Amino acid sequence: MCGIVGAFGVPECGRKLSLMLKSLQHRGQEAAGFATRDDGKLYVHKDLGLVDEVVKHLDFDLRLPGSVGIGHVRYPTTGDPTNRENIQPLQAHLTCGEVAVVCNGNLTNYRELRERLEASGSIFRSTSDTEVFLHLLQRAGGNGIVSRLKSVLTQVEGAYSLLILTPEGLLVARDPYGFRPLLMARHENGFMFSSESCAFDLFKATDRVTLKAGTITEVNAVGVATHTFQTSDYRRYCAFEDIYFTRPDSFLGDETVDRRRWRLGEALGHKNAIEADVVVGVPDSSNTMALAFAEKSGIPFRFGLIRNHYTGRTFITPSQVARELGVRMKLNPVSDIIEGRRVIVVDDSLVRGTTMRKVAELLREAGAVEVHARLASPRIIHPCFWGIDTPRRRELLAPGKTDEEIAAACHLDSVDFLTVEELRAALGDTDATRYCTTCFTGAKPVPEHEMPTV
Amino acid sequence: MCGIVGAFGVPECGRKLSLMLKSLQHRGQEAAGFATRDDGKLYVHKDLGLVDEVVKHLDFDLRLPGSVGIGHVRYPTTGDPTNRENIQPLQAHLTCGEVAVVCNGNLTNYRELRERLEASGSIFRSTSDTEVFLHLLQRAGGNGIVSRLKSVLTQVEGAYSLLILTPEGLLVARDPYGFRPLLMARHENGFMFSSESCAFDLFKATDRVTLKAGTITEVNAVGVATHTFQTSDYRRYCAFEDIYFTRPDSFLGDETVDRRRWRLGEALGHKNAIEADVVVGVPDSSNTMALAFAEKSGIPFRFGLIRNHYTGRTFITPSQVARELGVRMKLNPVSDIIEGRRVIVVDDSLVRGTTMRKVAELLREAGAVEVHARLASPRIIHPCFWGIDTPRRRELLAPGKTDEEIAAACHLDSVDFLTVEELRAALGDTDATRYCTTCFTGAKPVPEHEMPTV
Amino acid sequence: MCGIVGAFGVPECGRKLSLMLKSLQHRGQEAAGFATRDDGKLYVHKDLGLVDEVVKHLDFDLRLPGSVGIGHVRYPTTGDPTNRENIQPLQAHLTCGEVAVVCNGNLTNYRELRERLEASGSIFRSTSDTEVFLHLLQRAGGNGIVSRLKSVLTQVEGAYSLLILTPEGLLVARDPYGFRPLLMARHENGFMFSSESCAFDLFKATDRVTLKAGTITEVNAVGVATHTFQTSDYRRYCAFEDIYFTRPDSFLGDETVDRRRWRLGEALGHKNAIEADVVVGVPDSSNTMALAFAEKSGIPFRFGLIRNHYTGRTFITPSQVARELGVRMKLNPVSDIIEGRRVIVVDDSLVRGTTMRKVAELLREAGAVEVHARLASPRIIHPCFWGIDTPRRRELLAPGKTDEEIAAACHLDSVDFLTVEELRAALGDTDATRYCTTCFTGAKPVPEHEMPTV
Amino acid sequence: MCGIVGAFGVPECGRKLSLMLKSLQHRGQEAAGFATRDDGKLYVHKDLGLVDEVVKHLDFDLRLPGSVGIGHVRYPTTGDPTNRENIQPLQAHLTCGEVAVVCNGNLTNYRELRERLEASGSIFRSTSDTEVFLHLLQRAGGNGIVSRLKSVLTQVEGAYSLLILTPEGLLVARDPYGFRPLLMARHENGFMFSSESCAFDLFKATDRVTLKAGTITEVNAVGVATHTFQTSDYRRYCAFEDIYFTRPDSFLGDETVDRRRWRLGEALGHKNAIEADVVVGVPDSSNTMALAFAEKSGIPFRFGLIRNHYTGRTFITPSQVARELGVRMKLNPVSDIIEGRRVIVVDDSLVRGTTMRKVAELLREAGAVEVHARLASPRIIHPCFWGIDTPRRRELLAPGKTDEEIAAACHLDSVDFLTVEELRAALGDTDATRYCTTCFTGAKPVPEHEMPTV
Repeated sequence: MCGIVGAFGVPECGRKLSLMLKSLQHRGQEAAGFATRDDGKLYVHKDLGLVDEVVKHLDFDLRLPGSVGIGHVRYPTTGDPTNRENIQPLQAHLTCGEVAVVCNGNLTNYRELRERLEASGSIFRSTSDTEVFLHLLQRAGGNGIVSRLKSVLTQVEGAYSLLILTPEGLLVARDPYGFRPLLMARHENGFMFSSESCAFDLFKATDRVTLKAGTITEVNAVGVATHTFQTSDYRRYCAFEDIYFTRPDSFLGDETVDRRRWRLGEALGHKNAIEADVVVGVPDSSNTMALAFAEKSGIPFRFGLIRNHYTGRTFITPSQVARELGVRMKLNPVSDIIEGRRVIVVDDSLVRGTTMRKVAELLREAGAVEVHARLASPRIIHPCFWGIDTPRRRELLAPGKTDEEIAAACHLDSVDFLTVEELRAALGDTDATRYCTTCFTGAKPVPEHEMPTV
Repeated sequence: MCGIVGAFGVPECGRKLSLMLKSLQHRGQEAAGFATRDDGKLYVHKDLGLVDEVVKHLDFDLRLPGSVGIGHVRYPTTGDPTNRENIQPLQAHLTCGEVAVVCNGNLTNYRELRERLEASGSIFRSTSDTEVFLHLLQRAGGNGIVSRLKSVLTQVEGAYSLLILTPEGLLVARDPYGFRPLLMARHENGFMFSSESCAFDLFKATDRVTLKAGTITEVNAVGVATHTFQTSDYRRYCAFEDIYFTRPDSFLGDETVDRRRWRLGEALGHKNAIEADVVVGVPDSSNTMALAFAEKSGIPFRFGLIRNHYTGRTFITPSQVARELGVRMKLNPVSDIIEGRRVIVVDDSLVRGTTMRKVAELLREAGAVEVHARLASPRIIHPCFWGIDTPRRRELLAPGKTDEEIAAACHLDSVDFLTVEELRAALGDTDATRYCTTCFTGAKPVPEHEMPTV
Repeated sequence: MCGIVGAFGVPECGRKLSLMLKSLQHRGQEAAGFATRDDGKLYVHKDLGLVDEVVKHLDFDLRLPGSVGIGHVRYPTTGDPTNRENIQPLQAHLTCGEVAVVCNGNLTNYRELRERLEASGSIFRSTSDTEVFLHLLQRAGGNGIVSRLKSVLTQVEGAYSLLILTPEGLLVARDPYGFRPLLMARHENGFMFSSESCAFDLFKATDRVTLKAGTITEVNAVGVATHTFQTSDYRRYCAFEDIYFTRPDSFLGDETVDRRRWRLGEALGHKNAIEADVVVGVPDSSNTMALAFAEKSGIPFRFGLIRNHYTGRTFITPSQVARELGVRMKLNPVSDIIEGRRVIVVDDSLVRGTTMRKVAELLREAGAVEVHARLASPRIIHPCFWGIDTPRRRELLAPGKTDEEIAAACHLDSVDFLTVEELRAALGDTDATRYCTTCFTGAKPVPEHEMPTV
Repeated sequence: MCGIVGAFGVPECGRKLSLMLKSLQHRGQEAAGFATRDDGKLYVHKDLGLVDEVVKHLDFDLRLPGSVGIGHVRYPTTGDPTNRENIQPLQAHLTCGEVAVVCNGNLTNYRELRERLEASGSIFRSTSDTEVFLHLLQRAGGNGIVSRLKSVLTQVEGAYSLLILTPEGLLVARDPYGFRPLLMARHENGFMFSSESCAFDLFKATDRVTLKAGTITEVNAVGVATHTFQTSDYRRYCAFEDIYFTRPDSFLGDETVDRRRWRLGEALGHKNAIEADVVVGVPDSSNTMALAFAEKSGIPFRFGLIRNHYTGRTFITPSQVARELGVRMKLNPVSDIIEGRRVIVVDDSLVRGTTMRKVAELLREAGAVEVHARLASPRIIHPCFWGIDTPRRRELLAPGKTDEEIAAACHLDSVDFLTVEELRAALGDTDATRYCTTCFTGAKPVPEHEMPTV
């Protein structure tokens, strides 16, 4: 998970991209970066840290001038997080001009592509799979940059939403299955692009559209043109955008994520069979799910867990003391709500189970007499095929365990999940053509015959 | 408003104080600072920024060693915020040894004290009223530092909770009326001090007590001793600690702030006479009040406003673009909840009215057909006598206005407040001896004959 | 040794003071600082490092605006060099307004003055004796700041040249015996002040005068006024300004330091009795002395030692490797000049003897068959009474040793010095009323009856 | 001009390389960088600034560990000086392993090589011609890295001395004509490499040899092996190494540069026909030439110009004030030596003439009645074919002008130069096979049939 933004024809776009990225900060807190172009010159500014830290004291007029640009926030990655070469945008002097690129996603054939490119003379500077796009572009044949990018995209495989700042404007692409969201909107005489619609709201951008999977959108002085590079009957939206990644006020299609999460919470509350005194959500992502659960189940909702919003970056100052405190740094129960009560805690998902176990312990220390967990998504039993940041199978808690075993492992009195069918129903995908459910089922996301060959 | 912490007999206290301060970060985001003592040497580390920024990459063993220390987070002040001399702790080489001091509060006779001290030769380096304590201590007569501090505290007037790191240990004092909270707890073989109890929860500190107003607590190798320097029948707790400042999971007396806010919300909901479709709180501080209002009034509560928790420090990168966006940077409505609805928005208080007006506009843009505001505190009609950060009278919205005029000024369909009596009832102060209500009534907080004379 | 500069009525004085200080950089490389005043506001910028490092990337218009200001470069001190509180200018909010002060010199009664001030309530923030001036000023009686400063200067004892930036302009003072130099010149419609005249040459400042010892020069909008606070028949110029501290192109009185050093070198060459093949100076300070010695003695001068001018700040990165290399990092012999030759090496003075011993070893390694040292100053047998940075007596090499013993200690074939009489003759002080020679003789610099009493 | 160093089998080589580079600091003050390898891992540290600034506070054990490494100081370049990508060493992950490279010199066919490489897919990250070596290595065929490097070096054309840190050790190469110096010496059980011998003196390294032009020296655990990749009867040493670049104490062949400069000064003094009172050199580079001139001509030498060695980095803080001061920031005359005298000023060379004109003005302002310039090199009438930092022809002062016209342009009473024949005689190249004299004659440095073809 990461967040990307872009702007074309937007005066002072450096400042505005930074504000758009701040509204996507929940998608990645590890690093942030920008590229703009002004008077033919490319400007790049990027660093580890939150957007606010990265642009602290920045003279935007001097360092990120112009009215066209792109931006990126990075989710903590498994590689070396301090390797500055990996911070996006990546830039390069290509024979077609100097370009910069940001990407949200993962290429599944990165390893093979890199080896092939290196064997024929390319030198890689980062370990980010986004760099592959630059090398393939430098080598691509074809007349014009759009046809070159088309040829590049037929060689890569995976989930990606992509923004390229070119000498002429922007190239915007989304993989053929639409794993990662990407939207466009109109802002005065220009255009804005974003992983989520909430970034548009800041500027009251209008005419919001979701870009089509398998297309390249070309934006330059001439206007906006769309080029299809691959068509498919399938869509494979990542369900975790609905469940967890996206901000509640952002739109996925025609409705807000909040409404989708409400339906997930209702589905969970609908089948509740436990008597309890209070429902609490794990803030902030599960609040709506918990409230919906409460209304459906008739058990009152309360703000029983307080989140400290200032501890997001504990990773910056790791210490034994801080590690031992773990989730306690972020969450603290409200004793008056928890003490002597039977508590149902609602969360969006269960991956390794470490957070849920800590939450259960916190609640019991605060005096809860029972703790039941309800998850607004199915059991996660398989790593993500497309490389999204889910752990290896043996690190997942659910595979091979009964609900009772899961509850025991987390110090819970009971646990329950949505089924895949309940999830699909809540998300409006009853014919199973729109959502990727690999992590819940183990099924391959894309039919074999549609996979690209390197 | 600020936050202070202290520790005595707590190994690795630098790290632990930083984690305690992070849990008080809501009390001040402008600056943070620490002082510890180890092997007779005083160590100070402080800077502008959040706690995480200030301790980023800090080698605690080298820079804040020892098992005794103090810490401070600073609320944005009206003075020059970048004046580093004002960041606490303030330290000084006194003839009784090198000391450091942190203070939460405001001295009302600071100006007179400073002038008197300067006239007799003292040189001030900061514009912080906390510095007065150091100069008075350097000049105080008396046998031993406790009796010197007693003589100091009879000279100062105002609201203060105070921690002094001395060569022997800690001196902890609270003003005679208890305006600002200060608590002590036991941690293993040592003691912790904090403006709020949530900082103790991190370390499961036990035996929490609220320090008595008008006393000095002396902690050193010998043990803990309490010295009373002034007694009074009156307490003047600041009601805004209950309404807004304190974290919901912290205790004020025997109950959590969350429970007190629930009663404030209930009192407001009890008298509701408006028909509406949905109740939303202004997150995060008003959530519990709004939920209580909703349950009492029978109108459903929803998470209709999303707060971006990553924008707290916009002040760092001021820009025209950011200023125009204003509250929009922090709050965004969830369209599906607001559109076509009659909305009641619950907030804790109304000061200048600028935020409420922006919220009303946001909700109307999102399609609300009516917007009503309900405030869980009385009208604020008077600046704070004790210098708490409330604006001058002419900047307050409520004085001299009817509810209709207030509603009109904020683009609201209606507005309602708690009365002072409803507030007192909810806070359990029906005989009016415990809370300061100057800002709601204009009455002097302390009887004339109890005021100190300089 | 330190260097100070000042300007009044000089537009863009921040930039110009920085360039003046760069020309005094040889007087102190450890720290640099500036204070200017513009539109009633005081601006201070200071840090550890060379002037170029301290003003790197500085926006002078924003950070050091105005046309009146002062500056200071600091010589490595014996105290804690990283204590930033000690970097000058020191500033303070006094009842007479905000002032800043720089001082070149040492107060011999600092300890007593500080103790007395602290006992009556003052709090010191630095360990610099310059801070005493601020506290005494805050307490001084008298009508107007000049009469207050007069009363301050009758209380201090020692060697000092002083610049104070006041709300009205500058106050410039020199101790009653004139130990440290201080000059004034006219620059367009304003005035410049400097420890050495070479700083004036940059700006072609005219009408250079040496300020009189025992006077205060007051510069403000009204003009320039001189106030005498103490008169004495004695002058006690520090001979090391002539021998070593001052740049050769600076004037001391009516002639350049280069001409004075030429006479010192001639006096040394005049009495030479050694046969040798080549004369080399220890660069750069001894070059002129060595050339004069060569012409007088008839032995050819050559550039036999090369100085690496980029190693002045080795102290920044101390390491075992660097320490072992010692003087070799700074000086390297030219083999073709030294090999097989009898070498006379001329240096300005001999303090601990460590450098001379290393130089002798370097020359022998390079093939010198004989190495003789000639010093253009007398034997140093006594620490400086006035606290100038000379070591304690037991660290000096010369006391109690014959020339033969000194030569042996430094691996030299012979050594010779000037006598005190030869020095006085070369400096034009044959009646012994003008120069302090304490370090050469042990005599008290000032008659007992003229010492101030605290 | 730049400076490079290397070490193999030298414990704590990071520290030692930094000290070696400091002794080469005169060859480049703009940037410095290091690469070492330890336990198979490559470490790089580099930045803009002097060596001392770049390694300030550096933890060598952590950041530059190991006993094999390379280093580089960069001369101000015509490209974007703040482009950090251009700072050497350049590093790359090649298929043969991770390598780092430093180079002193200029490739004349860089443009063609880069275009050819980019056209076949390579992406360049810097604008430094040194990067070409990395791309060619990644694409080179051949068995083993030495044979790959041989194939690379047959493709490049120009002046270069090269050090490559490979997974196995070091590869060291010098172009076929030996334009730039490069030496090797033994240090305990290891080897050191340097552009100049003065870097060896620090560590008393022995067995100094000048590496042969047209060879690759391979140093690894097996030992030292030399591989010839091209032979030529011609050498084309750059005469400016003798005249200006190299430190006087460094050896070029069997004698010090100081001795060579003495002969250049003597040749100039030998033909002197002017009567004058004093000879001054432009410090520091021309001092020996001026002294030799003085002895040969019988006119006394004096230190009439003082150089401020702390102003080398004025470029860091450019300002109108500083620019106007120009050479006055660096040089100041000693009035007592200049006033009323006929002055001969000796300098090493005359390029644009701007410095000489400023020096003449300084001397006249100081009272010189005549100013004559004598240059210890021939007229420069042609830019350097090999890209050394000489300006374009129209910026040179000498082309097309008589001596009288040159003197008039520089405000001189007269000017004189060495002839090319006098230069060759002084440098021992009477048969014209060893030195490149393109800048003095315009002749191509290398016969056409020996030029590589791309």
